[in-house]
Parts: sequence; structure tokens; C-alpha cells
Amino acid sequence: MTDAPDVGELRPPVRTLMGPGPTDVHPRVQRAMTGSTVGHLDPSFLEVMEEVQELLRYVFRTDSEWTLPISGTGSAAMEAAIANVVEPGDTALVPSNGYFGGRMAEMVRRAGGDPVSVDAPWGEPLDVADVRGACEDHDPEVVCFVHAETSTGVLQPEVPALTEAARDHGAVVVADAVTSLGGVELRTDDWGIDVAYSAGQKCLSAPPGMSPLTVGERAREKIRGREEPVRSWYLDLTELDDYWGDGQYHHTTPISTVYALREALRIAAEEGIENRWERHREVAGTLVDGLDEVGLERYADDAYWLPSLNTVRVPEGVDDEVVIDHLLEEYDLEIASGLGDLSGEVFRIGCMGYSARPKNVRYLLAALEETLDELNAA
Amino acid sequence: MTDAPDVGELRPPVRTLMGPGPTDVHPRVQRAMTGSTVGHLDPSFLEVMEEVQELLRYVFRTDSEWTLPISGTGSAAMEAAIANVVEPGDTALVPSNGYFGGRMAEMVRRAGGDPVSVDAPWGEPLDVADVRGACEDHDPEVVCFVHAETSTGVLQPEVPALTEAARDHGAVVVADAVTSLGGVELRTDDWGIDVAYSAGQKCLSAPPGMSPLTVGERAREKIRGREEPVRSWYLDLTELDDYWGDGQYHHTTPISTVYALREALRIAAEEGIENRWERHREVAGTLVDGLDEVGLERYADDAYWLPSLNTVRVPEGVDDEVVIDHLLEEYDLEIASGLGDLSGEVFRIGCMGYSARPKNVRYLLAALEETLDELNAA
Repeated sequence: MTDAPDVGELRPPVRTLMGPGPTDVHPRVQRAMTGSTVGHLDPSFLEVMEEVQELLRYVFRTDSEWTLPISGTGSAAMEAAIANVVEPGDTALVPSNGYFGGRMAEMVRRAGGDPVSVDAPWGEPLDVADVRGACEDHDPEVVCFVHAETSTGVLQPEVPALTEAARDHGAVVVADAVTSLGGVELRTDDWGIDVAYSAGQKCLSAPPGMSPLTVGERAREKIRGREEPVRSWYLDLTELDDYWGDGQYHHTTPISTVYALREALRIAAEEGIENRWERHREVAGTLVDGLDEVGLERYADDAYWLPSLNTVRVPEGVDDEVVIDHLLEEYDLEIASGLGDLSGEVFRIGCMGYSARPKNVRYLLAALEETLDELNAA
Repeated sequence: MTDAPDVGELRPPVRTLMGPGPTDVHPRVQRAMTGSTVGHLDPSFLEVMEEVQELLRYVFRTDSEWTLPISGTGSAAMEAAIANVVEPGDTALVPSNGYFGGRMAEMVRRAGGDPVSVDAPWGEPLDVADVRGACEDHDPEVVCFVHAETSTGVLQPEVPALTEAARDHGAVVVADAVTSLGGVELRTDDWGIDVAYSAGQKCLSAPPGMSPLTVGERAREKIRGREEPVRSWYLDLTELDDYWGDGQYHHTTPISTVYALREALRIAAEEGIENRWERHREVAGTLVDGLDEVGLERYADDAYWLPSLNTVRVPEGVDDEVVIDHLLEEYDLEIASGLGDLSGEVFRIGCMGYSARPKNVRYLLAALEETLDELNAA
């Protein structure tokens, strides 16, 4: 049996976070996080919960009552979405055009459903005609799509047409908004999205651990009509709604992370959600212009540009990991490598939330240019 | 659609937390939580993860490699334990002597298993002979018990005899150590516990959101031999071990909460785990002596005393909610009411982690005495 381990003081490096998340956290959010801990059923905390829900409705652009953060990370919110709307035997369409569609398929299977792939190559969005065709062929109960693919840097356009195709067949629409919420135009209600989920540490720049979710009336009806309980007790939305909506004990929500999320959402509300979308376009616009100047070739087509997550091809003869490690070690700057099929093929450069600042973009471009020059010279 | 909500500055009250958790958080833990955010695969963070695992092994008294915190609250750790070891068709014994045994049964069902109740009245521990009998009758694959029942304030004695009864029948033993880890003697390996889980915000006095779990070799074998994947992707321990053990991306763990847990565990290691158990006995000893003096009758028998969670009967003619609200409003002091069957019957008074200090106990006893006197006079 181990003796008491001798673990020293925590001394994390101070990074500039320009990867796919987490992002730089605003000092106000850090400070809010240390607000004094209260009980999870304290009247003051129930009020905080209500405020968080109200703020979440604002950023999701929804009026739905069932809007709350899941006590876990973005993948927990993804699983909450899928595990609740998918019943054993259900067919769910999932996209094949990125890493996270694959994760959705896996979660559909674990919920007892049958995932059917709507194919599109990595780097391209779904084609609405394909979704419509797959709905006709497979008559799915659920249609999932990724609004902003963190692995490819592709934004799904024509969302209202896509949801219409699904709804015409009576399917419930689940949107992965992990890398869009709070940074890229997203209109949950107007666009006909039934369930959308996200994460704290992307465009909202909260610390990870409380993950936004919203569930509209059509999805609620499906969930209420389930014949079998949700396979996860922890993520059962009916029970979670009793806690968030009525203050009935379910679990002890991460108090400090809720404080932090509240402050991050408050900052978003102060900025104004549409201004925030515009800022992301502007700042990321400078970023991609700069990447062009550095001579890096963009991976995703301009038509599907995702300001919050920019992918560029790794230049021939360059080892992506050498560049990434160099940026981290010499510049305390984080960018990321490709995920899954794109491993070694692309760099992923985030421009989200509090990280989406001209200062960060200038620093990144300078560091990247210097690094590539150095490697070329070597 | 809502306009930007006008939500003011966060101003949580400063409470003294003597309920069933969360507990007061040490200033060092608060400070660590604001350590600068880094990526979830940053080399510095992978090191932090290893340290957390090492510290968790120390407080669990285990050598098991599969020791890690779950990215969620205590109930997520409970579900991780049950969802991984229980396969569809498995029989799992669960206790009936408290609120959390009921939750275990619910999770067993959702994992596809059949829960069989080992009966004992609320307020009493399980009888080892009953566990042995139930094993003979039902030949369970899994035996669950609650080491420290947060709803009744009862400590399960004779754990090694209980685990032996289960192991004699080849069952894997799951222990709920939510209210014992870090505060009450718990020896995972020596006592033959295969899976134990806890929460951050109890005797460890971290903020909620990262929840300790340890899985020994017998349970790992059962998990590795599963025919069906775990029903939750998020809580699949094989995947989580690839992240915590090998730095392979699974989800973005709550960085700040991991920092906080690390510091809370570091404080426990500095104190020494056995000293910490002793402090809980001493400080809670003063508490129960004081409760006797105030004239409150203890609910749980002395033989099963749980220092970290003390239950006393609500005096006849007293409305428990009036007392609890008065303490919160007039003294900023949190204690809790009874859960489930004990609603209205008992007060639950925690004495955990950083809250287990003579200062808090003195304040609580004075406030409680004054409050009861006032109510009697009214």
C-alpha cells in the first residue's frame, strides 16, 4: 500500500489556448468560480440555477423550459441527448462526415437504437437531399447532425432545410452545437432543432464540467412517451428537469462550475449574442487571412467555414507533432492536430469565446510563421 | 425569444456547511481551482492526472491501477460502478436500509440487471448472515452495499466479513463510499472491496464534479469479459482508463475541478489518512456529545455511528423545516432534513473534511440550542 504521495504545489503553465477547446477563461469567470460554496438545494443556489437556465435559453435562442446544463462534459450532454430520445429499436440517422458523428452512432447503439449513416466525405457538410433520401429509405425516429464539426472545421449550412427534411418524416432532430453555441449563429427554435447540446469550454469560455442542453416540445413528447426508462439514471432528463425545474434532489450539481458557467453566460449576454457571432467572424476572419499569408492551405471549403474552428493542411514534409510541440514548449501556445481520419493531415486552430481576440490571433500567426520558418531552415 | 436577461453579479451567501455535503472548501482548494486552464491533453495536465490517481490510491488504500475520478458527481460515479460491472441478466444484491440502496437498485435495472434486495430496516446496517443467505438463494454476480449511508447516518460494520460472504459466491463487491472516503476508515484492498466510489464534496472537501472511483482486478476481469458494451459511453471504464492511463482522448475532463480535487487530496495526504479518520472521530465525538446535551435523541445506534454524518430525531412538536430555515437564515448555517422514509423524522448533521472543525461544531451547537430554545419559547 502506498505511503502518502509527495505531490508538490500545483503550478500549471500559463497557456494561450487556440486549440479545439478548452479556451482561455475570462478572469471574471475564474473569480466567480471561487464564490463561496453553498448547498445544492440552498435557496440562493436555486436562484442561480434559474438564472443559468434563463441565460442558456438566450444563447440557444429558444423558449424551451427544458433548457439546463448537464453535470458533466460535452460528451455527457451528447449522451444525455441521444440516450433520452433514442429508445431500443429506434432508427437514428447519424452523419459520417466527421469524428463526432461516429461518436453519436456509438451512443445510439448503446441506447439500444440502430444508427444509419448519412454519408458525406470528411470535410463536407451533409447534403439535405441525402438526409431527405435517408429519411425516406429508413423512416428514422431520430435525425442527428453536427452543426459545427470540431474534427473537420466544417459548418453545416442550410440547417432549416435539413430539419424540415427530418420533421417531414416525423423524426426528432438532435444537433451537436458543441463548437457553435455562443460563437456561431445558432437559432434553435427558428431553425426547427428539437434537441441541441454543447459544452462550457468552447465558445462560452467557461471551464469544462457543465454542458448546455435544450430540449423542445416535440422531443419532450417523445421522451415522455418512452416505454422503457432511459438507460442512464444520471442523464435521465425527466429526473433532471425535476431538479432544475422544481428543486427536487437528484444529484449534487457542481456548484463552483455552475457559478463559472453563469458568469460566462452573463458575459455573453452583456456582449449580445449576435454581436458575439459577428466578433467570432471578424476575429477568425483575420486569423484565416493570416493563415493564407503564412502559406497554409485551408482544409475546409470557404462555403462551409466555421469561424470557431479553423483547419489547415499540414504542409508537405512537415511533421505536425513537431510544430504543435514547438508552439507549446516555446510559445506556451496550444493548437491541435487532426482527429481520426485527419490525424497528421491538418492543424486545428480554434478561435472561440475569450480566446477569440485579436491579441491571440496576432500571437498565433507570429508564432506559427516563426516556427515554420525555423523548421524550413533546419 | 428572450432578450439578453439582466442577471446581476454573483453574490452567494457565505454559509457554514454542516449538512450531508457539499462541505466547506479549504481556501487552498479554492485557489488551486483557479490555476490557469490548460488543454485536457497538455503534458502538464497528464502529469496532474497521474498525481490525482496516485493520491486517490492513497486515500482509497488501494494499489489498483484503475483508480480515477469520474467527470461528474457522486451519482455519476455510482452509475459508472454499476453500469460497468452489471451486464444484462446479472443479478445484483442491493441493500434496502437507506435511500441510496434504492438508487443502486434503479441503476442496476437500467443496466439491464435484476436487483435483489437484502433487507435491513432503515437505521440499521446489513447483517452479514443475511448477505450470505441472499448469496445462497440468488447466486448474484454483483453484491452492492453502502459503507456510509448518508440518509440514515449508519456505518456498515464488519466489511471484511461481508465481502467474504460475497466473494465466496464469486460475486464482485461494489461499495458506496460517498460519505466515508477521506473521513472514515476505509481499506479497499485489505477489506476485499472490488469497486468503491465516492464524491469530491464530502469528506474530501473538494467542490463537486470529479468523483473518485477505484476498480480492482476481479471487477476488471468481469468488465473485460462483458459480452455487451456498457450502456453508457460516457461512463465506460475501459475507455476512461485509456484516457487516464494512456492519455488517449475520450472527453474533456473538468480541468479546474481536477485542480481542486488534487489540492484537496494533497491536503488529505499531508494530514495523513489515519490521522484524518481520527480527527473525524474526535470532532464528531464533540458534536454528538453536544447534541446529547442539547437534548436531541440520536437516531442511529452508537454501534453503527458514522462520524461524518450524524442523525438525530426531530423533537416532538418541532417542525424540522422551521429549524433548518431558521439556521440558514439567521446563522448562515446548513444542516439537512431527512431523506425518503426519514423525511420529517431526523436532522442530518454532517461533520466532514474541512467542515469537521471544532469551530464549526461549537457554532452549530450554539445556533441549534438557541434556535430550539426560541421555538420552545414561542
